[in-house]
Order: sequence, then C-alpha cells, then structure tokens
Amino acid sequence: MCGIFGVLGHKDAARLTYMGLYALQHRGEESAGIFAYNGKKVTYHKGMGLVGDVFDEKAIKSLRGNIAIGHVRYSTTGSSHTSNVQPFMAAHKRGHIAIAHNGNLTNALQLRHAMEGQGSIFQSTMDSEVIVHLLAKSKKKDYKDSMVWALSQLEGAYSLVLMLDDKLIAARDPRGWRPLCLGRIEGAYVLASETCALDLINAEYVRDVEPGEIVFISKDGIKSIKPFPKQKHSLCIFEYIYFARPDSNIFGKNVYLTRRRLGQQLAREHPVDCDLVMAVPDSGNYAAVGFAEESKIPHETGIIRNHYIGRTFIQPSQSVRDFKVKVKLNPIKDVLKGKRIVIIDDSIVRGTTTRSRVKTLWEAGAKEVHMRVTCPPIKNPCFYGIDFPTKKELIASNKEIEEIGDFIGLDGLEYLSLEGMLKAMLLPKNEFCTACFSGEYPVKPPKKLTKRALEK
Amino acid sequence: MCGIFGVLGHKDAARLTYMGLYALQHRGEESAGIFAYNGKKVTYHKGMGLVGDVFDEKAIKSLRGNIAIGHVRYSTTGSSHTSNVQPFMAAHKRGHIAIAHNGNLTNALQLRHAMEGQGSIFQSTMDSEVIVHLLAKSKKKDYKDSMVWALSQLEGAYSLVLMLDDKLIAARDPRGWRPLCLGRIEGAYVLASETCALDLINAEYVRDVEPGEIVFISKDGIKSIKPFPKQKHSLCIFEYIYFARPDSNIFGKNVYLTRRRLGQQLAREHPVDCDLVMAVPDSGNYAAVGFAEESKIPHETGIIRNHYIGRTFIQPSQSVRDFKVKVKLNPIKDVLKGKRIVIIDDSIVRGTTTRSRVKTLWEAGAKEVHMRVTCPPIKNPCFYGIDFPTKKELIASNKEIEEIGDFIGLDGLEYLSLEGMLKAMLLPKNEFCTACFSGEYPVKPPKKLTKRALEK
Amino acid sequence: MCGIFGVLGHKDAARLTYMGLYALQHRGEESAGIFAYNGKKVTYHKGMGLVGDVFDEKAIKSLRGNIAIGHVRYSTTGSSHTSNVQPFMAAHKRGHIAIAHNGNLTNALQLRHAMEGQGSIFQSTMDSEVIVHLLAKSKKKDYKDSMVWALSQLEGAYSLVLMLDDKLIAARDPRGWRPLCLGRIEGAYVLASETCALDLINAEYVRDVEPGEIVFISKDGIKSIKPFPKQKHSLCIFEYIYFARPDSNIFGKNVYLTRRRLGQQLAREHPVDCDLVMAVPDSGNYAAVGFAEESKIPHETGIIRNHYIGRTFIQPSQSVRDFKVKVKLNPIKDVLKGKRIVIIDDSIVRGTTTRSRVKTLWEAGAKEVHMRVTCPPIKNPCFYGIDFPTKKELIASNKEIEEIGDFIGLDGLEYLSLEGMLKAMLLPKNEFCTACFSGEYPVKPPKKLTKRALEK
Amino acid sequence: MCGIFGVLGHKDAARLTYMGLYALQHRGEESAGIFAYNGKKVTYHKGMGLVGDVFDEKAIKSLRGNIAIGHVRYSTTGSSHTSNVQPFMAAHKRGHIAIAHNGNLTNALQLRHAMEGQGSIFQSTMDSEVIVHLLAKSKKKDYKDSMVWALSQLEGAYSLVLMLDDKLIAARDPRGWRPLCLGRIEGAYVLASETCALDLINAEYVRDVEPGEIVFISKDGIKSIKPFPKQKHSLCIFEYIYFARPDSNIFGKNVYLTRRRLGQQLAREHPVDCDLVMAVPDSGNYAAVGFAEESKIPHETGIIRNHYIGRTFIQPSQSVRDFKVKVKLNPIKDVLKGKRIVIIDDSIVRGTTTRSRVKTLWEAGAKEVHMRVTCPPIKNPCFYGIDFPTKKELIASNKEIEEIGDFIGLDGLEYLSLEGMLKAMLLPKNEFCTACFSGEYPVKPPKKLTKRALEK
Repeated sequence: MCGIFGVLGHKDAARLTYMGLYALQHRGEESAGIFAYNGKKVTYHKGMGLVGDVFDEKAIKSLRGNIAIGHVRYSTTGSSHTSNVQPFMAAHKRGHIAIAHNGNLTNALQLRHAMEGQGSIFQSTMDSEVIVHLLAKSKKKDYKDSMVWALSQLEGAYSLVLMLDDKLIAARDPRGWRPLCLGRIEGAYVLASETCALDLINAEYVRDVEPGEIVFISKDGIKSIKPFPKQKHSLCIFEYIYFARPDSNIFGKNVYLTRRRLGQQLAREHPVDCDLVMAVPDSGNYAAVGFAEESKIPHETGIIRNHYIGRTFIQPSQSVRDFKVKVKLNPIKDVLKGKRIVIIDDSIVRGTTTRSRVKTLWEAGAKEVHMRVTCPPIKNPCFYGIDFPTKKELIASNKEIEEIGDFIGLDGLEYLSLEGMLKAMLLPKNEFCTACFSGEYPVKPPKKLTKRALEK
Repeated sequence: MCGIFGVLGHKDAARLTYMGLYALQHRGEESAGIFAYNGKKVTYHKGMGLVGDVFDEKAIKSLRGNIAIGHVRYSTTGSSHTSNVQPFMAAHKRGHIAIAHNGNLTNALQLRHAMEGQGSIFQSTMDSEVIVHLLAKSKKKDYKDSMVWALSQLEGAYSLVLMLDDKLIAARDPRGWRPLCLGRIEGAYVLASETCALDLINAEYVRDVEPGEIVFISKDGIKSIKPFPKQKHSLCIFEYIYFARPDSNIFGKNVYLTRRRLGQQLAREHPVDCDLVMAVPDSGNYAAVGFAEESKIPHETGIIRNHYIGRTFIQPSQSVRDFKVKVKLNPIKDVLKGKRIVIIDDSIVRGTTTRSRVKTLWEAGAKEVHMRVTCPPIKNPCFYGIDFPTKKELIASNKEIEEIGDFIGLDGLEYLSLEGMLKAMLLPKNEFCTACFSGEYPVKPPKKLTKRALEK
Repeated sequence: MCGIFGVLGHKDAARLTYMGLYALQHRGEESAGIFAYNGKKVTYHKGMGLVGDVFDEKAIKSLRGNIAIGHVRYSTTGSSHTSNVQPFMAAHKRGHIAIAHNGNLTNALQLRHAMEGQGSIFQSTMDSEVIVHLLAKSKKKDYKDSMVWALSQLEGAYSLVLMLDDKLIAARDPRGWRPLCLGRIEGAYVLASETCALDLINAEYVRDVEPGEIVFISKDGIKSIKPFPKQKHSLCIFEYIYFARPDSNIFGKNVYLTRRRLGQQLAREHPVDCDLVMAVPDSGNYAAVGFAEESKIPHETGIIRNHYIGRTFIQPSQSVRDFKVKVKLNPIKDVLKGKRIVIIDDSIVRGTTTRSRVKTLWEAGAKEVHMRVTCPPIKNPCFYGIDFPTKKELIASNKEIEEIGDFIGLDGLEYLSLEGMLKAMLLPKNEFCTACFSGEYPVKPPKKLTKRALEK
Repeated sequence: MCGIFGVLGHKDAARLTYMGLYALQHRGEESAGIFAYNGKKVTYHKGMGLVGDVFDEKAIKSLRGNIAIGHVRYSTTGSSHTSNVQPFMAAHKRGHIAIAHNGNLTNALQLRHAMEGQGSIFQSTMDSEVIVHLLAKSKKKDYKDSMVWALSQLEGAYSLVLMLDDKLIAARDPRGWRPLCLGRIEGAYVLASETCALDLINAEYVRDVEPGEIVFISKDGIKSIKPFPKQKHSLCIFEYIYFARPDSNIFGKNVYLTRRRLGQQLAREHPVDCDLVMAVPDSGNYAAVGFAEESKIPHETGIIRNHYIGRTFIQPSQSVRDFKVKVKLNPIKDVLKGKRIVIIDDSIVRGTTTRSRVKTLWEAGAKEVHMRVTCPPIKNPCFYGIDFPTKKELIASNKEIEEIGDFIGLDGLEYLSLEGMLKAMLLPKNEFCTACFSGEYPVKPPKKLTKRALEK
C-alpha cells in the first residue's frame, strides 16, 4: 500500500508535503520521498524508513519551490530496495516528470515487455516507471492529451499525483479502488490519499478526485476532465475495515464511525453471552465500542498497548515465550481473571499473531474467550494494491472457520457476513470491490510474467 | 522518576533485565543501564536514550553472569548527562557495588558536603553516589550491618536494588513512597518497580518489598530484615493517578481498575449534561470508561492518537498552528461537530498542552467543551521523586480553578476532590502521601544547598 | 575523474572488486558502487563516500556471483547526488546492463536530446546513461555488433567496463585518453584503470586495453576486436603529472619513475642556488628526489604531513589563521630557519592553497623561498575527464608566471616547459593530449547545451 | 601513551584545546576529552575515538569559559572503555578537579588499596583517580601545598595538566620521563605534550616544564616551584625514536633532525653494499634520508603509502595474502626489480608486520634485502607510559638478532647500538631512560597487584 500527497501554489510546498506524509505514514512505512520544483530545477530527497527518519530540517530546506509531491511506500517482497523508492522521476522531452502512485496496474509487465522490445530501458521494477515511459512516448502535442493517452493504456488500480515541472496532475482510475482527495490551504491546492493529511495541515477538504477523473492544476488554476468511458466502481472496502486512519473520511464517509457500525452489526449477527467485551488494541478499538453498545455487555480494557516499541528486538530469553506479542500488548489479570470474554478485531490474516494474543488471555486467567471479526474471512489475494500474503499463508484460504477457531484457541469465533459488512457502509453495496473476500475480481488478474530480478 | 530491576540466579540475567527495563520504560525515558557480574568481573552497558536504542544484541551478550541489575532514568534539569546515567558503580574495599535507585533523598546534599569535608570526591550529582560512599565508609564487618548503617543515615524516598558482586540487595525506605516488588522465575529471584515487568518475563509475583524492609538475596537464599523503627506510610498516590502502567499492580492494587474507579467517583462528584464522554488519549482513557459508565453518557473516541510520532520534529510551516499537538492527536470532526462534550484527563500540570488540545476540539466544531480531571489541583513540588516543574510553572499554584478553565478555553472545569480521590483507593487513606495536592510534607523538604554544577 | 574495475570468473568477484576500488580510491572520492551477477539476478550496492565507508562485510556478502564491476567517482559540480552514483544499471530487452565509465563524451548532450525527442526518458545526468540507451536501441541481433554500433556513435573519451548479465566487456576510445589494463588472477580476468589495483589483489598484469579496442570476456574466453578507424592517440599526460598513483604503470610506464625524471628535467631547465630542496608532501615528493639528485642540492623534509586529517573541520579560533593548511602540513622550524629553499610541486591550479602553504614556510623563518613546478601552466579546461575548475579560476589563465609568483609570495617561480615535460616521458611526444597546457584540443569541445538540472 | 593540553586566559579556550589535541592525536587514538570552566560551572565532552570524530562544532560550542584542558589516550588492554576516558574529573571540598595525565605511576595500586581500606570508592582503573583522591584528602589549607603533598606520594612517571576550577596547574615528575612544554598565545598560557601543538595554534614556545617542577597558572599570573629533591633525569629516549611527531621539539631538541642523525650514525655503524636505500614509510622516512646521505647510496621511494586507509577492513579474498599490509604500503616493482636494497625502520616490536612488508619486497623482485634499525633491540617492557606488548611478544626478548633476520626473511639485519643511539642525541647520555633496551629501570617496577576488573 502507499500514500500520496501533492501541493501547488504554497511557498512552504515541501514542508506541507512532509507534514502530509507524516499523517499518511500508516499507508507505507518502508520508504518516503519528496520532489519539489522552483521554476528552474527539481530538487528531491528520499530514503528507506519512516518519514520522521528520512527527513530532517536540512533536507526540507533543500527542497525549494512552491510545488511538491510526496510518497510513502509499503512493499512486501524482494523489491524493497533503494531504486524502488518513490516518487519516481525522469527527464523527458518536455522537462521533468515526477510521479507518486498508489495502487497496482494489472498490465504493467505486458506494457514493459513491449517497450523493452522497442529499445526502452528500465531502472526500477515499479509500475510508475511504465507510466512515465508512456508519457514520454506519447506523440500528442498537448501534455493533457498525452496524459489521457498514457492513462488509457493502463489497466488496474491507480491513484496518481504527478509533477510535470510547474504543473500538478491528479488522476484516479475509472473504478476508483484507491482514495484521493482535493483540498485547499491559503490559496494553494492540495492532493492527499486521505483527509487526515488535510486536517493536519489545516487545509480545507474540497472534494474527492472522482473515479476516472484527471485534474490538471497550474498557476492558471484547476481543470478537470473525465475522458474515459464510465465503469462500475470498485472502491476498496478494506480501506474502511483496516487500512485508512479512523479520523479520515474515505470515499466521503468517516472511517471511525464506519468501524463503530461494523461492531454494532457484528453484535447483531453474532451475539454471545459474556461478562465483558474488549478490543485487540488498537485494531479492534472502534468496533468494540459499537459491539458493546449494541450488545449491552460491559466494555473493558483488558489489554494495555505499550507505546515504547522499538523497531528491532533483541532475541528474548528462552524462558520468555511470545515476547514480541507481550511487550506490545499486556493483558490485565485483575480484569480478565475468571471472566467470559468476547474480543473484537478487524480481521485475521495469517492467524498466528492472533493465536499468540489469545494465549496471553488464557494465561491471564480468562474463563472463556470468544472472538468476533468485523469482516468475512480473507480468502483471496489483492491485485489492486493491498499486500496480502500468498493464498497459502491466508489462513481462511486453507481452513474452515471452526478450524481457525481451534487453531487460535477460542471457545467461539465468528466473522461478519459479506452482506452484513456491506450493510454497515453508507454507500451502495455495488460501489465496492470485495474480491479478497468473494474472489470476484472486477478486472482480471495479471498473467504470470517474470520480472527481471534486481536486488540491493 | 526512575524504574529499577534486578535478578539473581538466572543464566539469562542481563537479558531478563533488558526485558524488565523495556516494561518499565514509562518510568524513565532519558537513559538506561545494566550491570552484570559473572563471579569474576563486572560488565556493564549504559547510555542516553530509550532501552531499545541503548541496547542491542551485542551489548546484551557482553553482559555476562547470573546476576544483573538495571535502571531507567528520567530527569528534568541540567543534570541530564552521561555521568548521571544509572546504575552507579564503584569499587570499594569489599569489591564492586552497583546501585539502582528510585526516589529522592532529602538529606543527600548535607551528607555529601560532610563527606567532601572529610576528603571524599564525587563524580556525579546523583543521590546514589552518596549511598555508595556510606557503604564504603561503614566500619561494620558484615556487609548486612554496613547496609543497615548506611541506610540509617538516609532521609527521604528510596527504593533500591544493589549488586554487591554476587549478592543482590533490595531496600525500601520506611515510608515506602516508591513501589518495589519481588518475583520468581525458574528458581531465580527478580526485583522490579512494577509488576508489569514481572508479567513481561513470565515471572510470578511473590509480594511487595515492604516499607522499611531490606532483602538480601544470594546463592544461599533470601533473607529479610526490618531494622528501622516503624513509621507512618507515605505511598505516592500519584503513581496511581499518572505514573504507573495501567496493567501493573502497585502497592498490591491494580492501576487500571483504580483509574476506572476514579472516573466513576468523578462522575458522581461533578456530573455534567453532555452528549458524549471522551478521553484525552491515552492518559484519560481508563477514567473515561468509568465516567461514562457512572454517568450513562455515551462514550466516544473523539480523538485519534497517531502512533508514528518520532522524537524530533521539523519546524512546521507557519500556516500550521499547533502541529506538535495535532500530529499526535487528531480529533474526528464527524464525531464532535455540534456536540456537547465532556473530556476526561488524569491531571493538569502546566495547562499549556491541555489548552492546545482543547483548541482542536473547538476547531472540529464542538458546541460545548467541559473537562473533568481525576485528581485535585497540583499545587506543590514533590521532593520524593516526581519531577514536577517549579511552583511558578504549576498552573494550579497560580490560578483558581475557574481561571484555569478560562485559560484552557472550557465551558466548565472540575477536579476530583482530595477526599474523593482517596475514596477511590482500596487502601486506607492515611497510607498515602498527598503532598503535591495538600502541601503537607511527611518529611521536611531539603534545605537549599547549591550543587556543584557539572554539565555535558 | 573516475576509477573502474571488473572481474569475471572468480568466486570472490565482488570482494576482489571491492579491493580493486580501494586501490583506485584516489581516482574518485565522492561515491562508490559495485554490481554483481550470479546467473540469476543482479545484486548491487552503492553510495556516496569512500569505498571503506560505503561497503561493509554485509554489503560485500550480499553481492553474489562470479562476475562483478565497480566504480569510484569524483565530480565537481552540482551533479553530486545519489542518482549519479555509478555503475549505472538498467534492464533492457537482452537483460541487465551495468556500466562503469571513466572519461567524458563530447557529444553526450546531443545524443540525449535526440533520444528524448524520440520518447526516451533519462534518470541521471551521466554520459553512461546515454551509452545504455544506445545499446538498448541497437537493432543488431548480436550483442557484440550492438556494442560496436553504440560506441560508433560516441565522441570524446571513454574507458568502459560493462557487465551484460554474465558477460564482461571492456572498451577504450580510439584516442585512448584514459588508461585501462587487463590482468589475470587464478584463471579469472580482471580489468582496472591502473595496475596498482592488480598489484593489490596479486593479479598478474597482462597488457593494456588498447585505444579503439573492445574486449569481450565470457565463460567461453576472451575475444578482442578493433572495429574503428585508427586515429592519432591522445593519452592524457596529466595522469603522469598528477592523477595516477606513483606505484602504477600507466600506458605501460611507471608513474613514480616518470615523476622522478620530471624532477631531474626541471632541475636542468630551471636551476636555482639554494640550501635545500624540499617537496610539497606528498604531491611533490617524487619529483623532489629527482630535482635534488640532478641539482646536488641537499634534499630535506621541511614539512611534515599529518595523517590524522578528518573529513570535516570545526571552525578554528579566529586567532588561528590557515588552520586547514597547517593541520595537514606542518613546517619544521629547525630545518627551515634562515635557509634558502626550493620547494617542488606537481602543479598549480588555483594558487590559493599553494599561497597558504608557502606562507607557513616564511613564518617558519625561511630566508628565501623558490618554487619549481613539474608541468607547464594549466590554462585550459579539460573536456575529456579531468575536473579542472573554470577558466576564471585557473590562475595561469589569468596571470603571467611572475604575477603568480608574486601572488603566492615567492622569490622565484618556474614551470617545466611543454617540451621538457614531453622529454621526460618514455613514449613519443605525439602520443599525448596536452590540451590543458596548449589549448590544442584533439576533439572539438562540446557545444553549450543546458542540462536539465536535478539536485538532491 | 597519551597527549595532554591546557590553556588559561583565552576566550576560545576549548577550541584551542581541540586544535591542540588534533596535533597530539598520534599520542593516543583511543579516546579524547575536553573540560572547560566558565567561572560558574564545568562543562565537558569526551568519547571513544579520534579527536575529529569525538568533537563537532556543537560540542565545542558547549564548552564554555576561558580555561580548558584536554587529553588523548591510547591503551592496550581490557581497560579500553568509557569510564577510563580522560580527563578525569571529580568534585571535592574545594570545587572541581579535572586532570589529564601522561605517564604511569609505579605505586598507583598500593595507594589505591590503602585508600579503599580507609573507605574510599573508585570509579575507574586510572592512575589519575588516585591523584585526585590524594588532592581531596590533603589536609593542607592552601591548594598549592595540597598539590605538593599529593605529588610527593607518587612514584613513577607523570606529566600532568590539572584544572582546579579557574586555576591551571602543570607538573612533571622529578625524573621527567614524559615531555611537557609551556607556550603563550595572545596573553594566554598554553601547556602541551609537544611543541607541534603550539605550532598549530600559532602559540609561541616559551620553555619546557622542567622535571620536578610544578607550575601554577591563574588570572593573577604564573608561579613555579620545585619542591622535590633533585633526582637523576630519565627522559624517555623512545619519544625521539618512535613516539613524538618529527616536527616537534622534545626536551628542547628537534625530533626530525634527531632521526636524521640516527640514520647517519646507523650508516656509520652498519654499512652495507647495496643499490638503493629506502624507508618503511613513514616510520623510517627521516632516518633513511640520513642513512643515504652518509652512505652515498641512492635514496629511492620503493614503497608507496596509501592515504585512504579506513579503520576497519572487510575480510579479503582468500586468494589475496597480506591484504592489510599491501593496501597500506605498495612496493613499486619497476624500482625494486633486481636491486640490492637496504630498508630503514625505526624499530621492530613483534616482527610480524615487518615480515609481511619484507615479503612484498621479495615479491616485487628484489635481489637482496637488508634492514637497518635506528635503535637497539627492544627487550623489556616499559613501566613509565609506553604500551609495549608483553615480554613474550617482544621478538628481541626471545630471539638473537640473526634469528630475527631469518624470521623476517632478510639477507642482513643490524640494529643501532645503545652507544650509537645515545651519541646521536644532543643531550648528555645520562639524561635518558633506556630501560626498554637495557633493562636498567630507574625506578623499580610495580609489584603485581590485581586490579578489580571492570569491563564495558
């Protein structure tokens, strides 16, 4: 997953971008980058790591100009190395293009192989480089027409922010998998993956960039076009379940309140006779509020989250089992001892972490442990931007619900139904992509083509 | 404030100490240190910063032996430099003494000046060095007698863990300001400031080290003495209010449940007509649960805490006010807009941070903002280990409650009464020190004596 | 300037490359990089800084395979940023190309502009990227033919080492400005800018790669072609004067002995009546030996070089003038006091450093200070790989010899004549490029074309 | 070995001290520290590593006041850890003492054990801490008398610079093993181990602090006393042979010129029939000049020293033998091939490094290799400050000269005689300590007493 940000028309463009990326950090912890342009040249700074580690005051000061774009990136596989840090930039006949991309193209490798056959060279393994090549190859005279032509070649998911020297461009694929919103601050335009980035810099939310829309922003103002045939929308429902920040509005609706409704729906669908409701902190916090409210079961804090977790751990003593889980989340024995508990979480992916956590509840003296999950079992990989593990590692791909409950060590486990999940949304149910649950892919997955491997 | 830890009789002594300090990190973020002894020599590692930053696998491996003690330290003033990192160690006629100390002595400077007059030299400005000098100067033949003699010279607060070559010693002053507990793991003895450190390493809680008790632990077993005249206890109530981890039991009682009761008591004392109860995350989280329960007002998450806060910040753009507050805690507009809110926090010290936070609630569209605080106004400095700012900076020392509410920008502000706070405790009210609220100091504050200043 | 290295057929390919770059460090201190290939994928490591800082054991271990190439880079201007660190690599239709380049092309910008017009994108401002684009665009079926076609487009100076997946290619432009030699070690082939890199790894020197030669090395052996029309050679004479390591053989002749002969020739051309000959350490060391020998004037060490020079300096006290010069080179008063001195150096570029150094001789009590320089005045920029400052900054471009002597503060200054310098060489004088002295450029300088600026 | 520095009366005191330590870096590469005092408090900065790495601009700026002392330290054994970084500082009844010490006391452990018996505690294993304890324990009223009393307890070697709040004190033991000189700059007083530190900051050399002298410097001026009975001097001759910088004057005489005379004397004592004289760079550089001059054999540079040596090395390929030696010093084949060589070095300690170096000469094609060394065989440990290895590791303690030559692989090896070495000095021969050669210790070595071990 990734977070993208852009601003045009503000003297502190790079600094605002830095702050925006700070707010979007949860969308990508692997690397961060910012490009800026001051009318003469492009300056940039990027690196592996968190926003707060990649940038310092000196770096921000070196990024000059009133236009900037930024990117935070998360990636699962071997491609985690420096040459894949975004934004991606290249010079072409019209100047410099820098691009920040959230989503996955399903035809990126076909496009790349075709261009290599025609003599093109590639320096990264990112989809973004394909888009830049297309823009450079376009024979259209106007850059707006080039943009339309290039995007028309793409299949799959993209929310994009581009910097074309002194021009800022935003685009979202016609199905609209990934969010992208437009804001204003002190006369400047701002683009961000989520509204929490606008909040942090005190920018006003204007509207979402719509599926299929391209927005061109320059010092002469803003222009929007929708050049592509209209398609059925495929908004990613997992953004609400798991990915987005609770204080963001995504696709126009608040995430926290959605999670609260998911908890309420869950309590209606799968009631349980227990002494207390508690959350897996922090992923189940908001649904647990809804579950407790609807079920009238007392809401307790049964696990304390430790905020001092460093990024690396020393190997614990052999006599200490599950150190990594326990150092992060410690159960309160006096709350749990002898109690029948229902614990709420947003999702189960591999099941192993959940198992470790539930084990600590038993060790704390719980009498019964039930679990309720605010989405259906995740059975299928995502080809549109979410980095699930392989099908083999997805526990729900390989086990029935009861088997999963046994594996985790629960007295009872229930998932919210697909229907129930969609009911908790404030948008029509056919607006969403639910492929990871249902296996119904709105756009066919990419053919298996080998990437040329490059590794740091 | 500080956290202390010790273990004797475990092959992974240093590693367990590292894990214990990890659990006690909230008691001191400034520096960390561990000393170990393997029967031949003392090895140590210490440094400025968080436990996870100070230690790595190589450092832990270098700490050899089955006895170790550790310390995390927090300090406000100029004395924040390397030579004050604990544990403090020195060689003396009997071997090596390493000491980890939580609390403040009220007669440390008198003792030091007297010893300097007799030709002693001092390398730090820490109370701990005074204690080591006393142990070295003792003319008693037995080290246990020396310990009693040395501690009998001290006034004020001390919870201590000492390593005397292959012997481990724990001690707590007769009034018992600071907590200290004893546990067991796989035959080994463990000492820790709070029980959460025992939980993390799967050690069993045995009992608290009692006020006035000295515990001698060696390979020959454990021996306890209470050589001092019994005194009225002065347990620090602020450990419950603010300092200790909610998952710890302090002075035998759980902290989370105490904070929950404080919230209930607060709702009874100072009810308010509002649409929703919310906490300042995370300091008010547990009292807010109690307040909501007692008041029957719905409990909402109105502010989201961002977990990606780095330790240093780049100067924000001038157009972004209150960046530091907002990057940490972002209000959810859809929850707060048009609502009458009561927000719960554990305490108010200077008032400035609270003011910034409340301001973001107004900006999010709140209709009314009331605040309730789970302790009385803090008006007096602490001389027993808590690093409050000076009286001049304590807002309640200088303003009436109504003025404080105006300063913060509230429609209403109420503090829990001293009586109400004590009622929420499970121990008799005369067990506690409440000097920071009442000004009644159980032991007279130190005379003003100038420390020789030394600064890195 | 740059240093390049390559090896094929050795299990320790990357490690040998690391050692080779260590020996070539003097040719480029700004950045270093190594690429390796193990039959399946390319691995690489590169970074800003010295070889010893960029690489550690972990990095070297990550570079797998029996083929590797490496590069050290020095650059003067704004283009000193990460995206310009060599080797440069890209994927194209035939696999991966990695390229290490020493020299400057005079038609790089024309080629680039033409390719941009055809839809190509560029990610660096390096000549090397142009060469890779040409290789990718070649329509020849055989990679050897593609190589010939691509190189035939180039004008200017290039010594190249390329890795084309499992094949190693070396090439040197027909005029042969920059050195490149071939060696063998334990059955493997090695390529290096200078023989000192072969010495360090105990490789046997085989021969120089000749001007206009392309050498293809693979597991099937070595093949050499000379596909281009023969041209007059333009070996860079400044490699002997200044750039190469004294223990290297360049263009087949030893550098130290050449510098010694330059000193002898200098003594014959410009004798001086003095008490002692001394060198500017270490640049004038070897010529000073020759000068003393020929002139029969005693050779003394008048200045001591300090080997503990860090890379950054704290601002010195205002009362300490010329700290940077003095911390590096300290004159010995007891040697210099009251003496008539002739000091030998290899060249004068800006003249400012020389002035500071000469000043310290006066302060040490010298009676007379004369200087002799082992090459003619440098009046012209180099377009073939040496990073001289601009004409405005070259002191000999703007002042007569006598004026330079006055500026530096000398009793006498003489440069070796062009004729004398060439006489000290062991190769025919028409083999050399002497453009920086004479202004006669063998290949016309590039037209002024603006690079698109990109800056970190 | 160590280097010490002090300044009083200069507004840039700490900055000058930093520069002074830079010049004294060769006397100790392990750690560095500076203490300053501004009339109110002592500030300090110290750390492991080179001066240039330990200090940055921020550190220097934090060191306030017009008095400062500094120290660079080298240590062989286990005591290489943070708590032993000098200067050593402690508070005592009169204020703060900071001490920088060069030399070794022979009765330090006796003094320490006695003081521990009386109740003193020790935090380091350094001799300096013993001196501070003595100063604190002195019952004299005047600090000058205390200083005399404390120093009168000491046996062995000490050159000291002390800071007693706003007073600067220098002292040198009555035998004067280690150098110490006094200078002036802009009205301020400066103390330094060697004159090269005065040169670097443009301070004027006034005179050496004499053996047995104590110099008290304050804002009221300078006062010198010689309170101890006069003793035969024992100036360390190894300072001339090896330790001091060639541009320094030590004990009033220039080091470079002394080394040159040692080379001349060596040529007279041990002539050899060879084609060329060369040095082991840089240790034999200056003696080689003298040897060539006296012997009339041509002086050549046969080995080039590489200046890019980092501090850590990656493990070389197994096919590369002697990488560490070769990366530092590369022989020039064209100079050495077929030649009869005499190579000059200052000393041989273990013999292993010399053997590796000589091997590279054979590999470069030398016909004969002879070696001449500018001091007698080192057979005995030093108890006065030089960190020789143990007797077991000193090759001359265990082998005859001919055996050493065989071990190293030489056609001939000769050492300068004790008599010849003393003849090359400009001071009377009975002024020197030659214990490491002769085994005649001027002060009896310390008894074997175990230190309490403490390790980081």
